[in-house]
Amino acid sequence: MKEFIIKANKAVTNGEINLKDLPGSSGRLDLLCRCVNSAFFLSHDMRRDTIFYSVNYGSPNPPVALKFVGSELKRVSPDERSIALFIKKALEKDASELWKESTSGIYSSKREFRDIILEKKNEGKRIFYLHLNGKPLEDFEFKNQDDEDFLFVLGDHIGIGDEDEEFLEEIGAEKISLSPLELHADHCIILVHNILDRLK
Amino acid sequence: MKEFIIKANKAVTNGEINLKDLPGSSGRLDLLCRCVNSAFFLSHDMRRDTIFYSVNYGSPNPPVALKFVGSELKRVSPDERSIALFIKKALEKDASELWKESTSGIYSSKREFRDIILEKKNEGKRIFYLHLNGKPLEDFEFKNQDDEDFLFVLGDHIGIGDEDEEFLEEIGAEKISLSPLELHADHCIILVHNILDRLK
Ligand SMILES: C[S@@+](CC[C@H](N)C(=O)[O-])C[C@H]1O[C@@H](n2cnc3c(N)ncnc32)[C@H](O)[C@@H]1O
Ligand SMILES: C[S@@+](CC[C@H](N)C(=O)[O-])C[C@H]1O[C@@H](n2cnc3c(N)ncnc32)[C@H](O)[C@@H]1O
Repeated sequence: MKEFIIKANKAVTNGEINLKDLPGSSGRLDLLCRCVNSAFFLSHDMRRDTIFYSVNYGSPNPPVALKFVGSELKRVSPDERSIALFIKKALEKDASELWKESTSGIYSSKREFRDIILEKKNEGKRIFYLHLNGKPLEDFEFKNQDDEDFLFVLGDHIGIGDEDEEFLEEIGAEKISLSPLELHADHCIILVHNILDRLK
Repeated sequence: MKEFIIKANKAVTNGEINLKDLPGSSGRLDLLCRCVNSAFFLSHDMRRDTIFYSVNYGSPNPPVALKFVGSELKRVSPDERSIALFIKKALEKDASELWKESTSGIYSSKREFRDIILEKKNEGKRIFYLHLNGKPLEDFEFKNQDDEDFLFVLGDHIGIGDEDEEFLEEIGAEKISLSPLELHADHCIILVHNILDRLK
């Protein structure tokens, strides 16, 4: 099982999403939509072994965590607009502590970025923090995902900030670099999938 | 220098693009937009060393070739809608034999998929055809892109078809597989960039 989590510093936390302006007024929701695309879409197929989380810290009700479960997703198309419509539905629900499903496989809850990571750590998952200045990926060994569970932590265009970086260090997250260039988060997800796919 | 070319079997060939329906009525223009995103966008930067071509074979005026030149692109944002607006402008021009610029770095012309590939072959570029059943990428050696020029050929959701596959074989294109899974073309572009970035 592979899981991804992104801290979306500016992404909206209610359903008032202008589909004509995902980057601006919705706080880089376009990026989030592309992350969902990267996490799940294969040619004529979906990655059923993947879960993707985004924790939104934009106005008006931060934080709101969104969860996308590959094995349950239905009717979502790969384009940004289609994904944004599903995110809109999820954000129209009032988020509370428990995960609430809005459409098949998409959930929301009032939960902090760190709390989700900690939960995964406690479940015994191997935690990676993706960062330009991490150790190059050649330095790591990955087991086949049937034998090992992974959580990959990503920042948005702003990054996750010093406090969350310290938190990740404290819990022993492995800091890994995928490229000598700084990439968009959605592009990083593609690269991670490929590393694990090629172990198969 | 890295160049990519995709055959877009259904993508529209005039400016009548419904931005609310890029996947349907515009013939998978959403995919094309994501390919442009993958080809050029870095975090807070753009890939100036890349050129991307799409040759559209949808109605009403096939073929129309589009060319995006990284070193000249301006004001394009990474989201699908923004890229689609630039493609719309390019497709509103009447395409003729010569490349005509619509906005900075974006050109259109009446040109066949094969003719562009042949031109690159004649310029001495190394031609790769990306395909699930190609030889695994570990079997290839890449020189640094400062010492070697590449053209990577991609299909859309339908693929490039038997005739163009034969043509590529005849001109000695190297058939390379990036993954044991069948991926979207835009995801393949990310993987190719990463292979070359890591040689740096
Ligand atoms: C657009 S980048 C973040 C840029 C932000 N200015 C910063 O300094 O953190 C988005 C995220 O992608 C991931 N990322 C970007 N480039 C990476 C690389 N070369 N290796 C690993 N992860 C990377 C990181 O998780 C990063 O937070
Ligand atoms: C969605 S796939 C094409 C699917 C189409 N049904 C076919 O059979 O050709 C789009 C393009 O991505 C590229 N591609 C997909 N998976 C690939 C892989 N594992 N290795 C290399 N290229 C791949 C190929 O160029 C392909 O034409």
